[in-house]
Amino acid sequence: MSTSTHTGKLLGVGVGPGDPELMTLKAARALAEADVVAHFAKAGNISHSRKIAAAHVRPGVIELPLLYPVTTEQPKCSSGYRNAICEFYDEAAAKIAAHLEAGCIVAVICEGDPMFYGSYMHLHTRLAPRFPTEIIAGVTGMSGCWSAAGMPIAQGDDVFTVLPATLPEGELARRLGDANAAVVMKVGRHLPKLRRALAASGRLPRALYVERGTMSDAKMVPLSAKPDDDASYFAVVLVPGWGERP
Amino acid sequence: MSTSTHTGKLLGVGVGPGDPELMTLKAARALAEADVVAHFAKAGNISHSRKIAAAHVRPGVIELPLLYPVTTEQPKCSSGYRNAICEFYDEAAAKIAAHLEAGCIVAVICEGDPMFYGSYMHLHTRLAPRFPTEIIAGVTGMSGCWSAAGMPIAQGDDVFTVLPATLPEGELARRLGDANAAVVMKVGRHLPKLRRALAASGRLPRALYVERGTMSDAKMVPLSAKPDDDASYFAVVLVPGWGERP
Repeated sequence: MSTSTHTGKLLGVGVGPGDPELMTLKAARALAEADVVAHFAKAGNISHSRKIAAAHVRPGVIELPLLYPVTTEQPKCSSGYRNAICEFYDEAAAKIAAHLEAGCIVAVICEGDPMFYGSYMHLHTRLAPRFPTEIIAGVTGMSGCWSAAGMPIAQGDDVFTVLPATLPEGELARRLGDANAAVVMKVGRHLPKLRRALAASGRLPRALYVERGTMSDAKMVPLSAKPDDDASYFAVVLVPGWGERP
Repeated sequence: MSTSTHTGKLLGVGVGPGDPELMTLKAARALAEADVVAHFAKAGNISHSRKIAAAHVRPGVIELPLLYPVTTEQPKCSSGYRNAICEFYDEAAAKIAAHLEAGCIVAVICEGDPMFYGSYMHLHTRLAPRFPTEIIAGVTGMSGCWSAAGMPIAQGDDVFTVLPATLPEGELARRLGDANAAVVMKVGRHLPKLRRALAASGRLPRALYVERGTMSDAKMVPLSAKPDDDASYFAVVLVPGWGERP
């Protein structure tokens, strides 16, 4: 534990979509100032956010890996899963609280943007009521993807929507048809269903499949040219809007 | 015009939502390397993106302000407006093309993210087919707002949507009720209508009004406590999702 005497502070630090240069100046400064750097990872894996931020993590800083419990043996909606994950977040928050009570600055680094579909929020709701907290916004994964693809996604009065591919097929089709522009997340094994929903809504011809959008081994292909058999859970499908380009 | 001998390259550079520290490392590097820095502004105003990036614009770099034509005397949907704005983008693209043909790196700096509701896209569609182009993703204005507010916006399987307040009241209400989380843009004089739509969809109690989200003079107030009379066109209303927090 640090012997720092300043007031403890929690930082939710977005490190962007993958390219280390898409970190913000503020995120880099936060890492230079933090006493403790915390990051989520699956047990046995190195955290993605830790890899992205590697050049900015000070040598000798206290690192606090927060390792998700192995939960693949339980369905996600079961009370067993919910209890296990809830207990994990409670314990992670307690570990961070101990550092904050000792006066440390704790930076929780997060892929993308901390408040947009990320695990950090589970710590935030537990800790922000008790400790000074600051959020450092980050470039989202989806911005990284449409930028890497050179794809204007939404313009003017477009309605833009983000959908999980886990939705039922009919609901996916309805929502895709109801928006000008869309990003579909959590594609993986839902790709055949998503493809049917895109076709039903007339959006299939302009849908782009993107894997590892801002990495050097990015894969981008029109969805109409992508087979159904090997989609990544972390792939996204982009449907650009801006139908009336002047 | 620069005497540089490298190949011309167009950079669409997101400089983030307002706080200069929310620029990415990549945007800062792009500005250090650019021969020409272009930015959109209203005639008589300094460009917001230019203010955000001020510390990174090299002394002596060629600056290319792109000044929107004064169009307030024409309704936005008129063919006169469309022709004037189209001509403006054509001329702006031609000015940039001249620098690209001379071998310059031209950075077009943009508030927020270049491909998300921004003017840069009008240049991109005109120039990207002809010149090497790279997009540098940025932190969006809406990420800046919900981060400054410390508001988790969307989680898990939430459906998230971005809506312009210009939509008819019934459509706003329907779309707000159909999403778990929403950001409403272009609020301004549409605030009374938006308030009714939020009430009709049951979202009014959790709606937050945000003006100048990442500036030192930010204004954030529950929409229920905000009078209808002085909303900014650039204000946003945030409606957080994540109804089932564990």
